[in-house]
Amino acid sequence: MEVPPPLVLKRSLFVPSKTLMGPGPSNCSQRVLEAMSNPVLGHMHPECLQIMDEVKEGIKYIFQTLNDATMCISGAGHSGMEAALCNLIEDNDVVLLGISGMWGHRAADMARRYGADVRYVEASFGRALTLEEIRFAFDTHKPRVFFVAQGDSSTGILQRHISEIGDLCRQHDCYLVVDVVASLGGTHFLMDEWKVDVAYTGSQKALGGPAGLTPISFSKRALTHIKQRKTKPKVYYFDVLLIGQYWGCYGTPRIYHHTISSTLLYGLREALAHFCAMGLKNVVQRHLECSVRLQLGIEELGLEMFVQHEPDRLPTVNAVKVPFGIDWRKVADYAMRKYNLEISGGLGPTVEHVFRIGLLGENATLEKVDMVLSILNEAIQSIKLRAIKTERSKI
Amino acid sequence: MEVPPPLVLKRSLFVPSKTLMGPGPSNCSQRVLEAMSNPVLGHMHPECLQIMDEVKEGIKYIFQTLNDATMCISGAGHSGMEAALCNLIEDNDVVLLGISGMWGHRAADMARRYGADVRYVEASFGRALTLEEIRFAFDTHKPRVFFVAQGDSSTGILQRHISEIGDLCRQHDCYLVVDVVASLGGTHFLMDEWKVDVAYTGSQKALGGPAGLTPISFSKRALTHIKQRKTKPKVYYFDVLLIGQYWGCYGTPRIYHHTISSTLLYGLREALAHFCAMGLKNVVQRHLECSVRLQLGIEELGLEMFVQHEPDRLPTVNAVKVPFGIDWRKVADYAMRKYNLEISGGLGPTVEHVFRIGLLGENATLEKVDMVLSILNEAIQSIKLRAIKTERSKI
Repeated sequence: MEVPPPLVLKRSLFVPSKTLMGPGPSNCSQRVLEAMSNPVLGHMHPECLQIMDEVKEGIKYIFQTLNDATMCISGAGHSGMEAALCNLIEDNDVVLLGISGMWGHRAADMARRYGADVRYVEASFGRALTLEEIRFAFDTHKPRVFFVAQGDSSTGILQRHISEIGDLCRQHDCYLVVDVVASLGGTHFLMDEWKVDVAYTGSQKALGGPAGLTPISFSKRALTHIKQRKTKPKVYYFDVLLIGQYWGCYGTPRIYHHTISSTLLYGLREALAHFCAMGLKNVVQRHLECSVRLQLGIEELGLEMFVQHEPDRLPTVNAVKVPFGIDWRKVADYAMRKYNLEISGGLGPTVEHVFRIGLLGENATLEKVDMVLSILNEAIQSIKLRAIKTERSKI
Repeated sequence: MEVPPPLVLKRSLFVPSKTLMGPGPSNCSQRVLEAMSNPVLGHMHPECLQIMDEVKEGIKYIFQTLNDATMCISGAGHSGMEAALCNLIEDNDVVLLGISGMWGHRAADMARRYGADVRYVEASFGRALTLEEIRFAFDTHKPRVFFVAQGDSSTGILQRHISEIGDLCRQHDCYLVVDVVASLGGTHFLMDEWKVDVAYTGSQKALGGPAGLTPISFSKRALTHIKQRKTKPKVYYFDVLLIGQYWGCYGTPRIYHHTISSTLLYGLREALAHFCAMGLKNVVQRHLECSVRLQLGIEELGLEMFVQHEPDRLPTVNAVKVPFGIDWRKVADYAMRKYNLEISGGLGPTVEHVFRIGLLGENATLEKVDMVLSILNEAIQSIKLRAIKTERSKI
C-alpha cells in the first residue's frame, strides 16, 4: 500500500479577511502580521533570547508584576490553565473552582486529571460570585488552590473583588490562580497588589497578538511552594521551574527546554510593543468606553444584556440575549456572509441563548461598536422579515 | 507601586537572516514565511477547519498512514512526545525506552511523571540499538509501551529495523511510539506498513514549516487501547480523543478543544504542500544524497563522523567529531559571525564532542553542503592558526 499525495494541497492557500468580533481571536494589526513573515531564528540564538526578554518585560507591565517567574507557555490559552494547575497541584490537594461559566468547569477537568480533590463554588446563573459565597466556600472546603476567571468569556461575566480574594487566600494558606485570558487589557488587573499567585492571559484577545503563546506569571510565594513539592509536576512540558530556566527567569544559565516558535514570538513582541506604547490605563479605558457604548446601543435596539447586574459585565466579551423566536445562527451567518463580520453564539451554559460580541484590541473602537450594532440590527430585522414572509406564504 | 512600560519595547523588532544548519529549526521558504502574514482566522471558522483538513491529509501522506487519528498538537515537538506518552500510559505501566542519545532520556522523564514504571535498553555509545538488544529487553521487561527515536538528533544516530520492532511489539502486546521529529523526510518511514502505533514529527525540520504545531498520528490499535483506559489521560491539553474531535478525525461533530494558531497552520500547510509537490521519495533521496556528499567532504577534510557504523548515520542531522584541541564554540562563532551560518555543537551525551550539521528541508541541497564544508574548514583552520599565533607570542 502506498498513500498518494493529497490533491487538496495542490490548491493555493485561501485566507479571507474578516472582522473578528467574537470572543477571540481578534484581528492582528498589520504590524503584527508583517512581523510574522520574518525569517525564523533558532530557539537558543541570542537574538531570539533577546526577543524573549523583551516579551517578558512586556508581560510584566501588562500584568503589573515584578515576578521573576514571568514567561510564556508554548501553547494555546488552555496551556496556561494547564501550567498553572499542573505546577501547583499535588495528589489529593483540595482545589476550589469558582464557577460563573464554562471556564471553572474546564479547570476542574484539568485539576481532576492532576489528582486534585475538586470542589466548586458556583455563582447564581448570570451573576459573578459574591465575596460571601467565596468566604463560605473557603470555610467549608479549606482549599489549597483557588481558581477563578476574572472574565468568563462563555457568559460575559466579570469577577470583581480579586484583591479581596487575594487577601482571603493568604489568610487560608491557599494559592490564587486567576484566568485573565479574556479580561486582560479590558479591565484593571494588578497582579502583585492584589496578591495573585498565578495569572495567565490569551495573546489573541485584547493584546492583539497571534494565538499560540500564552503569557503566564507565578508569584514568589507560588514558586517557593512549587520548589517544595514532594513530587515533580506531572508534565515536563508545563514544568515552570524548567521553562523559567529557558526564559532566563532565575538568574541561572539558559537551558534548552523546547523549541519556541520564533514566528509567534515576533508577533507577540510587536503586539506587546504596541500595547505598551498606548499605555495600559488607556487601553483599559478604551475597552470600557466601547463596552458602555455597546451596552447603550443594545438597549436602544430593544435587546437585552445577558448579565443583568451592570458591574458584573465583562467589557471585552459582551453577552447579548438572543431575542425570542430568533435563531442566533441565522443572525451570525447573515453578518458573516454579507459583511465578513464575526458575531459569535454562546458557549457552554449560554449555547443558543446569547450572542457574544468581542471588543478586543484592534476591534475595541467606537467605530467598530457602531458597525457591529448596525449589522446586528440589520441581521435580526432581516431574519424576522424572512420569518414573517415564510409564515405568510403558508397562509 | 506601578510597573512602568519597558523601554526595550520602544526599539524596532530586529530579526537577522541566517542560514540555519543546526539540528533545527531549519529555514522556512519564502512561500511559508509569506503565508504567515495572512490575516488570522477563528479557530472554528470553516476556512480554518478546511486548512486543518488539508494539513491532516498532508500528514497522512508524509507518515504514509491511513490512520483517522492524524492531527497536530498545538505545541513544540516536545508536546508530541508528551501527547504520545500521556495517552498511552496509565499508572505503573512498564514503559521501555530505547536509548541512543538524549531523546530516550527525555521520554523517560515524561513517562515517569505520568506514573510509568520506566525501564531502559541502551545502545553502545555511538551506535544504534541492535534487534538482539531490543529483543532481550522485551523478554526481560515485558513492556506495555516501547519508545524509540528513529533519528536521535543529539548523536546523529539513525535507528533502523523499525519494521521488525513493530512486529516484536505486536507479539508482545506492546505499543510502539516512534519519534520521527528529526528523521522524517530524510529517511524512509512507513507508519502503517511498519506497524507503528504513535508517530510524531517536528514541523521545523525537514518539513520546512514553522515550529509550534506538531504532526502526530495514532494507529487504530492505539486508539482502541486509549478508549479502554481505566482513567482519563492526565492532561486535557494532550487528550487525543478530544483533540481528534476538534480535528474532525472521528466522524463526530467538531468540538472546540483549544484555540489553534491559524498563523502556524498557514505556514505548515504551505510547507506540506511544497513537500507533497516534490514527492516524499524524492525528498528522502535528496536528503540522503546530501548527507553522503557531506560525509565524503568531512573525510576529505581529515575530519571524522561521530557515528562509526555507516548505516547508523542519520542523514538529516550529521554529527562530526570536534578535532582534538579545537574549541567547538569558536568554530561555530566564526561561522555565525562571518557568514551568518549556524553550525551547532553537541547536546546531551555529545556536548563539547561534536558539531551537528543539519541538512534539513530548504538546506538539504548539494550547494549548501559544499558551503557548510568550506566554511567549517575555514573556521577550523582559522581557529588553529590563531592558536599557533597565541602559542608563538608566548615564546
